[in-house]
Amino acid sequence: MSNTTGEIFKVTTFGESHGAAVGCAVDGMPAGFAITEADIQAELDRRRPGQSALTTQRKENDGVKIMSGVFEGKTTGAPIMLLINNENAVSKDYENLKNLYRPSHADFTYEQKYGVRDFRGGGRASARVTAALVAAGALAQKYLKEKAGVEFLSHTAAVGNVSVKADVSVLETITRAQIEQSPLRCPYDGGKDMEAEIAAALEDGDSVGCVVRGLIKNLPAGIGEPVFDKLSARLAAAVMGINAAKGFEFGNGFEAARLRGSKNNDPFINSGGKIMTEQNRNGGALGGISTGETIYFNTAFKPAPTISKSQNTTDKQGGAVQFSAAGRHDPCLAARVVPVVDAVCAVAIMDLFLIWRAYARD
Amino acid sequence: MSNTTGEIFKVTTFGESHGAAVGCAVDGMPAGFAITEADIQAELDRRRPGQSALTTQRKENDGVKIMSGVFEGKTTGAPIMLLINNENAVSKDYENLKNLYRPSHADFTYEQKYGVRDFRGGGRASARVTAALVAAGALAQKYLKEKAGVEFLSHTAAVGNVSVKADVSVLETITRAQIEQSPLRCPYDGGKDMEAEIAAALEDGDSVGCVVRGLIKNLPAGIGEPVFDKLSARLAAAVMGINAAKGFEFGNGFEAARLRGSKNNDPFINSGGKIMTEQNRNGGALGGISTGETIYFNTAFKPAPTISKSQNTTDKQGGAVQFSAAGRHDPCLAARVVPVVDAVCAVAIMDLFLIWRAYARD
Amino acid sequence: MSNTTGEIFKVTTFGESHGAAVGCAVDGMPAGFAITEADIQAELDRRRPGQSALTTQRKENDGVKIMSGVFEGKTTGAPIMLLINNENAVSKDYENLKNLYRPSHADFTYEQKYGVRDFRGGGRASARVTAALVAAGALAQKYLKEKAGVEFLSHTAAVGNVSVKADVSVLETITRAQIEQSPLRCPYDGGKDMEAEIAAALEDGDSVGCVVRGLIKNLPAGIGEPVFDKLSARLAAAVMGINAAKGFEFGNGFEAARLRGSKNNDPFINSGGKIMTEQNRNGGALGGISTGETIYFNTAFKPAPTISKSQNTTDKQGGAVQFSAAGRHDPCLAARVVPVVDAVCAVAIMDLFLIWRAYARD
Amino acid sequence: MSNTTGEIFKVTTFGESHGAAVGCAVDGMPAGFAITEADIQAELDRRRPGQSALTTQRKENDGVKIMSGVFEGKTTGAPIMLLINNENAVSKDYENLKNLYRPSHADFTYEQKYGVRDFRGGGRASARVTAALVAAGALAQKYLKEKAGVEFLSHTAAVGNVSVKADVSVLETITRAQIEQSPLRCPYDGGKDMEAEIAAALEDGDSVGCVVRGLIKNLPAGIGEPVFDKLSARLAAAVMGINAAKGFEFGNGFEAARLRGSKNNDPFINSGGKIMTEQNRNGGALGGISTGETIYFNTAFKPAPTISKSQNTTDKQGGAVQFSAAGRHDPCLAARVVPVVDAVCAVAIMDLFLIWRAYARD
Repeated sequence: MSNTTGEIFKVTTFGESHGAAVGCAVDGMPAGFAITEADIQAELDRRRPGQSALTTQRKENDGVKIMSGVFEGKTTGAPIMLLINNENAVSKDYENLKNLYRPSHADFTYEQKYGVRDFRGGGRASARVTAALVAAGALAQKYLKEKAGVEFLSHTAAVGNVSVKADVSVLETITRAQIEQSPLRCPYDGGKDMEAEIAAALEDGDSVGCVVRGLIKNLPAGIGEPVFDKLSARLAAAVMGINAAKGFEFGNGFEAARLRGSKNNDPFINSGGKIMTEQNRNGGALGGISTGETIYFNTAFKPAPTISKSQNTTDKQGGAVQFSAAGRHDPCLAARVVPVVDAVCAVAIMDLFLIWRAYARD
Repeated sequence: MSNTTGEIFKVTTFGESHGAAVGCAVDGMPAGFAITEADIQAELDRRRPGQSALTTQRKENDGVKIMSGVFEGKTTGAPIMLLINNENAVSKDYENLKNLYRPSHADFTYEQKYGVRDFRGGGRASARVTAALVAAGALAQKYLKEKAGVEFLSHTAAVGNVSVKADVSVLETITRAQIEQSPLRCPYDGGKDMEAEIAAALEDGDSVGCVVRGLIKNLPAGIGEPVFDKLSARLAAAVMGINAAKGFEFGNGFEAARLRGSKNNDPFINSGGKIMTEQNRNGGALGGISTGETIYFNTAFKPAPTISKSQNTTDKQGGAVQFSAAGRHDPCLAARVVPVVDAVCAVAIMDLFLIWRAYARD
Repeated sequence: MSNTTGEIFKVTTFGESHGAAVGCAVDGMPAGFAITEADIQAELDRRRPGQSALTTQRKENDGVKIMSGVFEGKTTGAPIMLLINNENAVSKDYENLKNLYRPSHADFTYEQKYGVRDFRGGGRASARVTAALVAAGALAQKYLKEKAGVEFLSHTAAVGNVSVKADVSVLETITRAQIEQSPLRCPYDGGKDMEAEIAAALEDGDSVGCVVRGLIKNLPAGIGEPVFDKLSARLAAAVMGINAAKGFEFGNGFEAARLRGSKNNDPFINSGGKIMTEQNRNGGALGGISTGETIYFNTAFKPAPTISKSQNTTDKQGGAVQFSAAGRHDPCLAARVVPVVDAVCAVAIMDLFLIWRAYARD
Repeated sequence: MSNTTGEIFKVTTFGESHGAAVGCAVDGMPAGFAITEADIQAELDRRRPGQSALTTQRKENDGVKIMSGVFEGKTTGAPIMLLINNENAVSKDYENLKNLYRPSHADFTYEQKYGVRDFRGGGRASARVTAALVAAGALAQKYLKEKAGVEFLSHTAAVGNVSVKADVSVLETITRAQIEQSPLRCPYDGGKDMEAEIAAALEDGDSVGCVVRGLIKNLPAGIGEPVFDKLSARLAAAVMGINAAKGFEFGNGFEAARLRGSKNNDPFINSGGKIMTEQNRNGGALGGISTGETIYFNTAFKPAPTISKSQNTTDKQGGAVQFSAAGRHDPCLAARVVPVVDAVCAVAIMDLFLIWRAYARD
């Protein structure tokens, strides 16, 4: 259950790490919009393994095929099925995992829930399934950019104990090009220190956690639905649905919990005829509805649980087991999860944007 | 839009601060379950204003009536409509708000979205609408407690700069009685310091933010649906939908972002024949599915934006305005938002629990 | 479950025949639209008992109150809760029904499903719950009429063995005023014979079935969603959800099953510059999407199962029982179910209309 | 929009007649259930063209591949993507259709709705997309048969003017084997006359309409949800969503509209200790909930609009055009639509069955 998201822009994903394919059906894409496989591939390439020394050296082409819903280069209004065939899926590598519960993976809970478990590379619980979301998100990103100028500019804000706080004026200047120049997708000066943090973890056969900052520009005012689809709540659900996500804070987030109201409140001002907040401390939404200012939030990702270091755990019978992961794995999720954050946010906002448009005509 | 939540346990809320009533229709409550108005009232009384010096002295009885779906003391399977008539709603108090945008309130965004705005006490954006959620949550809490032993034990964990970290072994011992003994609903020793923080803010005509810790005991393993209804994602959305919520972290949350994998990973152990994690660092779910261990998370609430202190803002024409709120307001949301956190979590989990049960029979 | 309908125009109903009230929460009504209780009451009065000798003489005022979502006469975008308190609900009348299963009523199936049953007047299975739908439909009808000129003109087309076939050119001329002039809501000459059929049934302590013809004018082309929300399918579900509905045929319906393709096919013609079908045999939709022509369909309603005549059935223990209904009941549903058909169609189309509008902007 | 159906058993379909593939993602299939491609293929083969002289001689293998959600022969709880690659899709055949609106096809309405149109063989509006439903339905049919003994036994009941009425006692005896022995899937004696009706239409370069009778055995009592998901309403929507469907009547349907209540009412009787209706005139449900007796209904399908005979219509500019379809087409939908009716009913009932099970445990 629950492999479909959205009210009128509906994305259904399918596939598992070592099955035949992963992919999605995108239902509710407006008709007559030009879309190519290259548009989608560009986003998938941002998520692809092997981009730099900071990511796993596993080789996956992640080539996407548009299987339906596009005719003569344009969307037809029919669902768009995007298929990414799995390659390099040597399942025998995973026979040794069949009988044990890897620490901080979903092996145990899937087995509790379903009775059976596809133990090949995590099956449906693998981060590989986020490729389907990136593909769906590429459609939403392209549409929102072309039709409304909305841009998704998530980036790495912290790795382990190295973090960069950035006030809103800095966030306003960040571009996709800046983000992509950094192998870590960190547009700040501190990026090099973060890379060192990752290199050190890698050297130790270990992994390290990270914070990805979500950033969305040019979203019109009025997006988001009270009570249960607040913009902040939809983005929280979207991001917390990504593998390894542990936290979400919107605007100044947990800092707000430490402040007094007189300090946290953000007066409206008249800025050259435009009414807006003085400092956008709220993160671009109030009462769950966008203000028209820049959206920003932080998301915490735990260190990838797959590490080379030896670990203790149990097998299915409860027997103690020592275990260490073979092969190369992501020492830090940051670089590759940035496009996933962009994607899930674009999918959520596309839905809210279309709903808003249904009502905006009166 | 979006005043209904849930897949098969559906809660629809309605009502605004100074309309005739607030309430909800709860659809999907199992039949034959004993429920009384007193059961629901008990939870509403936890949210009611005027409980202590720490909360607003506004007088509201919040008396709930069961309008449908219960016959001879038992649920019939029909939707249960719960109605809370509004009293003490002197709308003229709000005429002065009609033309201005209160800082960090939803006045501006509602007007951007809807063109019109019910300016009486925040209208639909008022925290008063959470009373309906508390009523719905009371049904879910009672059912989950009686049928599966699940308990919802949210409580205050921080106010301003006073906070209490508590490891899982402490969390395991907390009871509802302990929580209710404290006017702040803080079962920790630090509660008195937090109360002082609130008193100081109140004296300054100010408000202060807080962290509420979510705590859920005895949830069976297997609850939560990948990919888009992960337990963590559903709870995030539920909590971020509460007025003034700014952050959510599941298990060790943002701390995980600072750790190495070898430190954050939590081995499975055999504890007297039961397979479980060594430390429950994950917060009781892996891959979005409950492990059967205690669920815990933190949620950040900003300081209530309504304060007595004078503030600057603009009116609808963009003119500068000075403004200070009359009357008594909540200096800190903590005490009254705790039952709301319990309620929204209970509503979300009731839905996931029933879905789980649909599949658990095979 | 399933007391909510609609994707973005969501109507949730609640209440049972002899509970405190029936009503609904309408979520997704565009903001800034003028609506009064009188607007809604006018539609409820069409459904009210006691309008003529053809309907039950039971006395119910069905007075509706707008409980939320309207401020200073206009919708605010918040859910609109409409409440109809139950009067004249003398429950003791129903004690004798507690232990038996009335023929062709839902007593048996509710008990099978829920274990418990509200036996007072049918409880949630009573046709009284359609009052809530009529109230919700009044909002949709008013909006669609004012914003797009859409009119809902259902009417009685047959009673027992008296029926009127009408070709599309006749349907095009029917007005709401014509329908309302007839106590049976039958705008055709044959109406008097139908009334005689009802009078005869009434005299015999019996009831009689009927066909209501659905008729919708001025619906724009492009409404309806393939694959699962075809206009015809949504209308079918809406109408088949009404108590006592037994059949639905869209356009020429079952007649089409008897025809050859060369006879049933309906060529497109150029009518003064407008492309349209020659005869609108399809009923105003092709492939589930409106053509822009008049929508029509037939719906069959069984005779009301409550009759004065003595009937055999069993009690809950399986013992044979003789039973006859006391009081006055509807000898034919036609007159009072016409506004219900209008209402459920308006609710369904309002949803499809708003979805269409979300996409129509590009 | 609206290419997903179901609340917890969700089927999303995609694909168009001459795209790369058609298929579906089935979400909510219980885990641990054995399923093979052969299970699904068997149902697809019932829908495949070229089975007899009564169907189009077009050659399509419709070979299905399970692309996800099954591991070691069993469902895993992950979505099951079923892919049917399109073959024999010579798109150039359709260039001549690009500029005209075929009578009683969806060409015109798709163009009105979407602006663009995939003119190759009807695109998304083609009956070919029902193959995806048949595949999804095969999963539901197998599950419901094995777990609850539910059988889906739709069959042809009329072609043109040749029809067979059958009372419930006859329906009770029909088996899948009987249905499959007839090329027309008509288990009645009248089947030969119906075949002659089709042969005559074919000889004239014409097509002819049909009635398919839905028949479902062994459905437990209690399935179906009031108010908006009545069993009858869900089946109506499911069937009316099939291409060319024009009518639906549940149980005695339109006949009920002609009867008196005393004649139509169906007393409960005690049949050897089991309480049931005397004649099951209702069709196996009352108040929208199954009685535990046999479910039956009729569905009308119009004659396939594609015929060899020359027809008039217009082109996109409104110019008059003469047009006749090349190639071989289905002279009657009956034989091939029977498995589609089974499939959509199985999908709808699987959803209702799982929802029922969520509540049935108390």
